[in-house]
Amino acid sequence: MSEEICADNQDNSTLVVPKERIILTGDRPTGRLHVGHFVGSLRERVRLQNSGEFDRIFIMIADAQALTDNADNPEKVRQNIIEVALDYLSCGIDPAKTTIFIQSQIPELFELTAYYMNLVTVARVQRNPTVKSEIQMRGFNADIPVGFFTYPISQASDITAFKATTVPVGEDQLPMLEQTREIVRSFNRTYAPVLVEPEALIPQGEAAKRLPGIDGKAKMSKSLGNGIYLSDTPEEVAKKIKSMYTDPGHLKVSDPGKIEGNAVFTYLDAFSTNEHFAEYWPEYANLDELKAHYQRGGLGDVKCKKFLNRVLEDTLAPIRERRHELEADIPAVYDILAAGCETARAAAAETLHEVKDAMRINYFSDVALMEEQALRYRRVED
Amino acid sequence: MSEEICADNQDNSTLVVPKERIILTGDRPTGRLHVGHFVGSLRERVRLQNSGEFDRIFIMIADAQALTDNADNPEKVRQNIIEVALDYLSCGIDPAKTTIFIQSQIPELFELTAYYMNLVTVARVQRNPTVKSEIQMRGFNADIPVGFFTYPISQASDITAFKATTVPVGEDQLPMLEQTREIVRSFNRTYAPVLVEPEALIPQGEAAKRLPGIDGKAKMSKSLGNGIYLSDTPEEVAKKIKSMYTDPGHLKVSDPGKIEGNAVFTYLDAFSTNEHFAEYWPEYANLDELKAHYQRGGLGDVKCKKFLNRVLEDTLAPIRERRHELEADIPAVYDILAAGCETARAAAAETLHEVKDAMRINYFSDVALMEEQALRYRRVED
Repeated sequence: MSEEICADNQDNSTLVVPKERIILTGDRPTGRLHVGHFVGSLRERVRLQNSGEFDRIFIMIADAQALTDNADNPEKVRQNIIEVALDYLSCGIDPAKTTIFIQSQIPELFELTAYYMNLVTVARVQRNPTVKSEIQMRGFNADIPVGFFTYPISQASDITAFKATTVPVGEDQLPMLEQTREIVRSFNRTYAPVLVEPEALIPQGEAAKRLPGIDGKAKMSKSLGNGIYLSDTPEEVAKKIKSMYTDPGHLKVSDPGKIEGNAVFTYLDAFSTNEHFAEYWPEYANLDELKAHYQRGGLGDVKCKKFLNRVLEDTLAPIRERRHELEADIPAVYDILAAGCETARAAAAETLHEVKDAMRINYFSDVALMEEQALRYRRVED
Repeated sequence: MSEEICADNQDNSTLVVPKERIILTGDRPTGRLHVGHFVGSLRERVRLQNSGEFDRIFIMIADAQALTDNADNPEKVRQNIIEVALDYLSCGIDPAKTTIFIQSQIPELFELTAYYMNLVTVARVQRNPTVKSEIQMRGFNADIPVGFFTYPISQASDITAFKATTVPVGEDQLPMLEQTREIVRSFNRTYAPVLVEPEALIPQGEAAKRLPGIDGKAKMSKSLGNGIYLSDTPEEVAKKIKSMYTDPGHLKVSDPGKIEGNAVFTYLDAFSTNEHFAEYWPEYANLDELKAHYQRGGLGDVKCKKFLNRVLEDTLAPIRERRHELEADIPAVYDILAAGCETARAAAAETLHEVKDAMRINYFSDVALMEEQALRYRRVED
């Protein structure tokens, strides 16, 4: 393979103009989803779903991707598929509008990956900053499983199989999407214009920020035990908020308090509205007034935490209620997933067929190939 | 992934005792097959097929593997599938006894590869001597396509999908087979004993040697134009033998001649029998007598070449005749391939199902999973 195939030149003749607006997004099923997921993506997905701006929305439970660095613990992945599905549905993902599917159940994705692997060099994957930092984060060093190393290519399959035009991703994931775009261009140039180049949809406002753990640490994680989960009971949520990291210098109520790095206020930034103040704490018109009071001193953490608990419950209580309804009929949730897989598979199979047609490797339906070869031999015989 | 998963410890508890003796072998369809293929593998495959020692034999036309370093030239691969199939059938591969199939038409292989990739580290593939030398041979350096880099893993899929017990390979391919055996052990240990560890069947005698090109160079290749193809006409074969490299020091008939590096004698080693001498050159009882005369002087190259031509034609004429019959009905050859693909796919699908059962990712047929989860939630509610 010459570097030219992997080069990043725009070539308009091979650009595919998408007919529909399609979203592909998803999560690795390695745990239940928490309020960080809600703020960073779930809330936005529900909004996009209900905006009417998209023709099709696919949400993938990326079990195969999760297995790339959990090969020795498939049980974790297996048990969390239903949890993630329950979280999706509880938050308002509507299977009538959005196709929820499980990655491993769409064999076409693996086949696409195999062919895309021929269009990307090892050096190119090694240069990918997202891969670099994820490898570091997981402490792999030289022991990276090949499946993990090559996941930018597998991600390109996930996106292109559904001809996604729009992929909601954080800034840190942009190099991954660029890899997909390169593969699309390379494929379309090498074979025929079939694949759609996706655009990133980068979260704005609160969704762009990462919600910290209740200990104020940047990342909410199961191992740190610092997350508030969508499936937590009201008691668990209340207890977690009580223990939440605020301003360690704010010892007496009369002390001035700091807002920066104070998890209670970061959470209020993400969840509270003026309506919440009107209903639960009419002493303040909005969050700015509350922050001002906290900063000048005379406002205790306990009061703020009680307010945050009410605000959070406003979001979490209906999610929890809906989750309980869904939990009562687990087979029905599997039915939703099975139907989603069927829909997703049909879409991916259509793309794969076009891909193989473009590569001209659908030999048995290639009448021209057979006729051409038969004719060639007839001539040789004459 | 810890190195332990990739470690090379034999663990008898995860050993699968195969019920049948099964062969998996094949070729990359990047050109017609030549007499080197015939001596090195085809002849042996026909012998194995007719030996009655094997329950099933699968021969794969490895188009997907050929595409890993021919991504920009799929046409070459596409045109040569039928050529390789014609060569197989002409040589005596019998579709009633042997399943001939095309790799790309078996989607299960790609899915297996994806899961095996999680069990192998990047460092392990980089250490593979066969990969190292193939990369060097193809002049890839840093521009290795990921698909080419990972082909030892894809080869593990090809072998294990059919539960092959026996893989005919040259000495140089042993590290590839060792990679497969490692993947088998790792899979069986990590999930459940499903996969069969294949054994190498290393060619003995003439088959172990590489037949040189007619120019005496070690490798027969299309680009060097130094091969005798199974599909060559008698005229082409005669012409190639006439131009064959012998002993450059053997100028006069009376001069002593060298046998070592003399392509004519290397070919006679591979093809001639005592019967050939009795029929075509009764002056000598066998090849040893001929060699002795050549070495002491007084025997010309032309005579030896004429004899070689007769000997080769004894093998090539019936192959050529059979090929012409097959060429007259190309669609029938595609039918044979389609039937082979169907048989191969059924076998691979069975293995894939067992593999996914072992990984416990056949969620929708996993009644225990659903019941367990439903019960868990019922308990939480109580």
